[in-house]
Amino acid sequence: MKNPNMLKNSVKNNLFLRACYRQSVVRTPVWMMRQAGRYLPEYRAVRSKYDFITMYKTPELATEVTLQPIDIIGVDAAILFSDILVIPEAMGMELIFEEGRGPSFPEPIRTNEQVNKLKTVHPEDSLHFVMDAIKLCRKELDNRVPLIGFSGAPWTLATYMIEGKGSKNFNEIKKWRYENSEYLHNLLNRITAAVLSYAKAQIRAGIQAFQLFDSWAGILDPPGFREFALNYARQILRELKSENIPLIYFAKGGGIWMDALQECEADVIGLDWTVDIGVARSQLGARYALQGNLDPTALLASPEKIRREVIRILDSYGHGEGHIFNLGHGILPQVPVNHAQAFVEAVKEESLKYH
Amino acid sequence: MKNPNMLKNSVKNNLFLRACYRQSVVRTPVWMMRQAGRYLPEYRAVRSKYDFITMYKTPELATEVTLQPIDIIGVDAAILFSDILVIPEAMGMELIFEEGRGPSFPEPIRTNEQVNKLKTVHPEDSLHFVMDAIKLCRKELDNRVPLIGFSGAPWTLATYMIEGKGSKNFNEIKKWRYENSEYLHNLLNRITAAVLSYAKAQIRAGIQAFQLFDSWAGILDPPGFREFALNYARQILRELKSENIPLIYFAKGGGIWMDALQECEADVIGLDWTVDIGVARSQLGARYALQGNLDPTALLASPEKIRREVIRILDSYGHGEGHIFNLGHGILPQVPVNHAQAFVEAVKEESLKYH
Repeated sequence: MKNPNMLKNSVKNNLFLRACYRQSVVRTPVWMMRQAGRYLPEYRAVRSKYDFITMYKTPELATEVTLQPIDIIGVDAAILFSDILVIPEAMGMELIFEEGRGPSFPEPIRTNEQVNKLKTVHPEDSLHFVMDAIKLCRKELDNRVPLIGFSGAPWTLATYMIEGKGSKNFNEIKKWRYENSEYLHNLLNRITAAVLSYAKAQIRAGIQAFQLFDSWAGILDPPGFREFALNYARQILRELKSENIPLIYFAKGGGIWMDALQECEADVIGLDWTVDIGVARSQLGARYALQGNLDPTALLASPEKIRREVIRILDSYGHGEGHIFNLGHGILPQVPVNHAQAFVEAVKEESLKYH
Repeated sequence: MKNPNMLKNSVKNNLFLRACYRQSVVRTPVWMMRQAGRYLPEYRAVRSKYDFITMYKTPELATEVTLQPIDIIGVDAAILFSDILVIPEAMGMELIFEEGRGPSFPEPIRTNEQVNKLKTVHPEDSLHFVMDAIKLCRKELDNRVPLIGFSGAPWTLATYMIEGKGSKNFNEIKKWRYENSEYLHNLLNRITAAVLSYAKAQIRAGIQAFQLFDSWAGILDPPGFREFALNYARQILRELKSENIPLIYFAKGGGIWMDALQECEADVIGLDWTVDIGVARSQLGARYALQGNLDPTALLASPEKIRREVIRILDSYGHGEGHIFNLGHGILPQVPVNHAQAFVEAVKEESLKYH
């Protein structure tokens, strides 16, 4: 048991925390990436009044939407409503958000000089709104379920900072990866320092678990994944070990590099839906809890088909501890609320017999 | 040796054909997916005068661009210039091509009734322009290098037919996958019959190898890949075995399902750049030749960095036969011609010592 104090303390529903440490639970805990999101009418009601950036920068609004899925969907953990791009912004990059287009950086990083001009991040200063939201969430949650904090992983943040926005082939960061790797390492080192101080500030503010999102890991090649993604994620995770909260590493598309993931030093490895979770357990289960891995588009199907997929994944993982049920990526805005509810209910009911 | 007649016949450069059957070669053969493409000024010169659809429907134009990379880049095989969407079009779907937006189907398939109305394909009739282009290519190539024919795989074609165009999350076909799998199987069966007769017509017209492109395989989940993609690809490949030309299956994103790929019944398995080709060889190399797998964006780097990556992949594959060098996906339009040339030259020079 890694953190007896935390587990003994007053979190009423500690299924998620126990499963992260592969401790026995009566059923498999469940939450959904992007569960505070547009599929919820209650979220859309807030969003209709405020833009996305205002929402995550206003602790009261961030707290309101963070808590929505706890009661409406019945998930076993809350995850702070925020955005991974707060770090590049705190490092000095202008972030804009156009309706219908998502966030972008109008002046992406293209030179090593730009990298050298990036600011050191003092999270309690430039990112105080995140810490304020964490404190308010903890207060409002009143220990019903644990609160998960998160950050983008260095490789994923570097991808956004260099590309400026989403991309089809990621030509710009790939040029750095293949041609100017020393500049890329310079950038990744700076981001790593920022993420580390950001994670520590979140922990001081009260998060009870921490997830590192490496959403663009899957665009890399095998040695590139080790050198540019895993290497920096691991630095952060290793340094946070002594903080005694569960650490989750989610490298989307990274299931093909199971050997490398062995070395990530998290407590939990997140899996997208392309991975067979039974195979992953046989390779990683001795050291890691696994989080995942329903295809988010499966929630577009009917509740009975959703239940069938839930059973398939529970069955693939098999009996015993160390599984946190989740989607393999964020819940889609098009998912009907009753489908999300049916998903969570199916996990709660069907998982009993595996414990 | 599978086809002694073909290998004995007059193809002057038979490195590619021999490597497909894992026979000894003096060096590793190399070609590039989408090698007849926009990175070539000579291609752009033709393209500036004709739209994309006119180009592949006019045998003289298709032949002209098919042959361009043979002399300009020095690749060891030609691949017919065509498009995978000729099959849905021959099945009765209207295909439009908007400049800068790529091809799309304005009336995508959304009901089983639409599936039932799809036409049976008679390739020598509705797709005669492809067979004419193959015959003309063979004539113009004059057996300098072999000619590869291709088709989209059923799952990938179904994805385009249901989505209508590219997609972020593939919600529409995923609804079929999770909710209406019997309709999806109906569609996949019809496409499979069409692809099979199309492949046989291409073989009669003179192609010397055949590649099945499953470009959207990677969006599936593990059992979904077997049921909806591999299952149909295998039907086609199994049926074509007796035709005695090398068969290549390229499931982009499929490297994570190595166990399933074992069963594909091709001669060659194509690998994208996320796969460690050395690991793939240890798992698949006893039965399959492997084709790949340089990251296409690596060609944006300088010739010396390209050579370093070529050496890394040759080294990962190791000594001996059964490797066809290629990119892990199509060459990008932004690649300078001299970089493509440097890539091919590096493979030719550096691979000598592995044979």
